[in-house]
Amino acid sequence: MSDGECVFCEIVRGEAESSVVHDDADVVAFMDLQPVTPGHLLVVPKTHAAGLEDLDVDTGQKVWAVGHRLSRVFRRSGLRCDGINLFLADGEAAFQEVFHVHLHVFPRFAGDNFRIDADWHERERSELDGTAAVLRNALAALAT
Amino acid sequence: MSDGECVFCEIVRGEAESSVVHDDADVVAFMDLQPVTPGHLLVVPKTHAAGLEDLDVDTGQKVWAVGHRLSRVFRRSGLRCDGINLFLADGEAAFQEVFHVHLHVFPRFAGDNFRIDADWHERERSELDGTAAVLRNALAALAT
Repeated sequence: MSDGECVFCEIVRGEAESSVVHDDADVVAFMDLQPVTPGHLLVVPKTHAAGLEDLDVDTGQKVWAVGHRLSRVFRRSGLRCDGINLFLADGEAAFQEVFHVHLHVFPRFAGDNFRIDADWHERERSELDGTAAVLRNALAALAT
Repeated sequence: MSDGECVFCEIVRGEAESSVVHDDADVVAFMDLQPVTPGHLLVVPKTHAAGLEDLDVDTGQKVWAVGHRLSRVFRRSGLRCDGINLFLADGEAAFQEVFHVHLHVFPRFAGDNFRIDADWHERERSELDGTAAVLRNALAALAT
């Protein structure tokens, strides 16, 4: 998808409707159209990046910092907020739907309808050590 | 809870068992004991902070940058990875279980067992605009 066809780029350019909470030189934050809880917003880099692979490190840190700040804002806003989730989906397999990087920030409270499910069970240390070794090797390869 | 009773502080000090992937002056990343998918790891600031409220901005950005880098590492690691989720739970209502800030990073693939559920439905623009206004006011108050 080109930048011209990206709905988040359209929001950045002011060509699509949005309810903006924060807007600076690099980052914009606006309300999610289908909130998981009231207040659910998205923090988005202004420069188009489909995913984490093509997002530069500095811009990612700016997105994070706005998400961090807005998390603290939720707790002072008067909106119902006993906790916060930050969530990012990178790739279709990870539930990404709009291919312009976005950090979800949403307030949580007892009895809200957000749920996570997984096949949790404790793993053997040997298995975890093996996976860690694979990742350390891949990290060293990326660094060179 | 004091730092001395925090299991992540014990890992940082090398007093508790862990499978470490990354370790620098400010941040450590290690395997989650109960992974949602194989490879699930946690990125943790070395200095104790229970949640986002007491995490300083710079340290948060360092945690994010390590999570971002490790996301790219997963895709090169040979581990099964068609996508990545980053997830942070701040507060018990948001599913936080260990009260030392941690960013979850886990690889995703078709058919894995990680699921999200919520009461999604599109909201009226007027409602979103109203919520955005509340948050903008709270943001301005935090900034002063």
